[in-house]
Amino acid sequence: MKLPADPAENLATLIRCPSVTPAEGGALTALAAMLKPLGFSVERPIFSESGTADIENLYARLSGNGPHLMFAGHTDVVPAGDDSAWTLPPFSGEIRNGEMYGRGAVDMKGGIACFVAALARHIEKHGNPKGSVSLLITGDEEGPAINGTVKLLDWAASRGEGWDAAIVGEPTNPDALGDMIKIGRRGSLSGSVTVHGRQGHVAYPHLADNPVRGLMTLVDALIEPPFDAGTADFQPSNLEITSIDVGNPATNVIPAKATAIFNIRFNDAWTAETVQAEIHNRMDAASRRKKYRKGSREPIEYELVWRDGPSHVFLTRDEKLIETLSGSVKAITGRQPSLSTSGGTSDARFIKDFCPVVEFGLVGKTMHMVDERVAVADLETLTQIYSRFIEDWFG
Amino acid sequence: MKLPADPAENLATLIRCPSVTPAEGGALTALAAMLKPLGFSVERPIFSESGTADIENLYARLSGNGPHLMFAGHTDVVPAGDDSAWTLPPFSGEIRNGEMYGRGAVDMKGGIACFVAALARHIEKHGNPKGSVSLLITGDEEGPAINGTVKLLDWAASRGEGWDAAIVGEPTNPDALGDMIKIGRRGSLSGSVTVHGRQGHVAYPHLADNPVRGLMTLVDALIEPPFDAGTADFQPSNLEITSIDVGNPATNVIPAKATAIFNIRFNDAWTAETVQAEIHNRMDAASRRKKYRKGSREPIEYELVWRDGPSHVFLTRDEKLIETLSGSVKAITGRQPSLSTSGGTSDARFIKDFCPVVEFGLVGKTMHMVDERVAVADLETLTQIYSRFIEDWFG
Ligand SMILES: [Zn+2]
Ligand SMILES: [Zn+2]
Repeated sequence: MKLPADPAENLATLIRCPSVTPAEGGALTALAAMLKPLGFSVERPIFSESGTADIENLYARLSGNGPHLMFAGHTDVVPAGDDSAWTLPPFSGEIRNGEMYGRGAVDMKGGIACFVAALARHIEKHGNPKGSVSLLITGDEEGPAINGTVKLLDWAASRGEGWDAAIVGEPTNPDALGDMIKIGRRGSLSGSVTVHGRQGHVAYPHLADNPVRGLMTLVDALIEPPFDAGTADFQPSNLEITSIDVGNPATNVIPAKATAIFNIRFNDAWTAETVQAEIHNRMDAASRRKKYRKGSREPIEYELVWRDGPSHVFLTRDEKLIETLSGSVKAITGRQPSLSTSGGTSDARFIKDFCPVVEFGLVGKTMHMVDERVAVADLETLTQIYSRFIEDWFG
Repeated sequence: MKLPADPAENLATLIRCPSVTPAEGGALTALAAMLKPLGFSVERPIFSESGTADIENLYARLSGNGPHLMFAGHTDVVPAGDDSAWTLPPFSGEIRNGEMYGRGAVDMKGGIACFVAALARHIEKHGNPKGSVSLLITGDEEGPAINGTVKLLDWAASRGEGWDAAIVGEPTNPDALGDMIKIGRRGSLSGSVTVHGRQGHVAYPHLADNPVRGLMTLVDALIEPPFDAGTADFQPSNLEITSIDVGNPATNVIPAKATAIFNIRFNDAWTAETVQAEIHNRMDAASRRKKYRKGSREPIEYELVWRDGPSHVFLTRDEKLIETLSGSVKAITGRQPSLSTSGGTSDARFIKDFCPVVEFGLVGKTMHMVDERVAVADLETLTQIYSRFIEDWFG
């Protein structure tokens, strides 16, 4: 039986499955078909929750005597956008000038295709790894992420699964394969602050209380001063105001309320709780400032609301995992990858509660864009890196 | 024939006409019926413009040998709002505890009712005034004001009408009859400033350019420093931010643009043109500031758009008009009215291009509110003030 040792072939198969979240699109079925000849037992739990789409997920395990390695990722993709803007159709997996085009090529069907090929080559060459390997693949990473990795981890753990290390196959390299391994992620916290004023006619500002003046004062205190200057492992925490909304169409009316929405990406100098406390303190102090509100006697009346749950900051310190992966990258590409904690959150933030986790995959440059594509040569290189890692980590 | 010498009766008649802009509601017809027995010739020009409702207006003239006095106002009213919240029905003109309830009671069917009664009493007592009197009444003051006073003035002027002085019967008294004559108004100018940034993921702020940071900087420069400290005749100019809108629902996305809308009420230290130049200068200077945008090398890219036409500032310096009216108020109420330029704009800003204009009417406290109402005693007092003014101004 032919094993799935060609990453380009694996990837073309996966790209041809139109698995735009929440659709499975045949992608998990195709993946299962690749894994079964390798000896994996495959399970396909479906998770659901009221108000969200049912989501298919996949957990595959190849059991062996030794440590347990998890490879984690997702087969769902973001929409293609304007199909006609693509050089080659987004769900065709066609190749032009040495690059395979398709939604999910790098984020992250490509990572999965390479890991499967790496396993196939390992098994062909050395037989089964000296331990267990499992693939934890969700169909809900690009969507609400409610019926995905979090539930899949709990589901597997409740069946007695435990892991010693995990690799997430997200595209971690900014420019070229070998650039960057991610060993942690900043935390993320979103909230809104609403100032309640007193509506009135713009010609009689003393009879009204313009909430925009209060909001300006509070937003100023959200942005300045910076939260920190960075830590040994992380870049500085950063807060962005993502929206301000008043929605007052009448230029002769002072509005009744004004809202700002913000998101902070915080490093390991903080926890979600200390960030919340700091922002509470800043708002309380600023609410008594007279800036923009010269005549005002009362403190600004505001309401601070946290949105969703926070994403917690984490940093992986597993030397064997990090050094084995770095060494594999160096051995195959000749380049020393930087160990980074930059960028957005990923599902690694959930996995870190179960075992040490790092992230390494393809070059992310075209992810989520029209003409998402991957160099076929990169697929070969990443397969070799993953192969080498499997050999060394189990070896 | 009975002349319309009872202001409460006149007002009840007018209140019973449901003349919510743009509806005439019978109000101008009722007014014409009051004026004809007094010898007025009445014309009812209708103005229209594409995209706006046709509006009925009224111009009535009683010709005499001598100067020409205009009384200006409007019979249209704002909606009643929640009818059931009113103590007495909003279009009934019923009286309780000495107060007549009804939409338009003070703004400004009451002013018209009193002026008509004052004329009736004058004619009964002294015969026609020693000059001409005209009433210039629009049905489009509370609405878009496009098919109202502006067109009515041009229409009359093009027919050879010219005036020596005008009284606008808007409710000028904050608390009690005799408080305040308005002798001018601040100008008003509205605009929006939009900052164009670069959209991006909130985890990679260096790849994006958050327009909210730029907008905060520009809004700061709109508000501070104050435009002036006031002039001999006017309170300080004041700018209010009436709305800020981004409309970004995604807390993980840095938006592409952000807009603030503002209105400035400016005094006679400025013209609309110098205000615009000052704001342009402030925006240009602020666009180079690094506040909130530490790393940024480029100036803030913004767009400043003026909304509608400006309302020009004006100040009436006609001693005869002002002193005759002040004297009449003093003679009837015993109180010396303040000569004010405060508050919002009014149609007087259009009339001032044709003749000196002042404003004096009822107590405005309940205007535009549920339970708009007027003390019947105030109707009698205002009628006496207007009567005395007609006598003295022509005398
Ligand atoms: Zn991804
Ligand atoms: Zn009015």
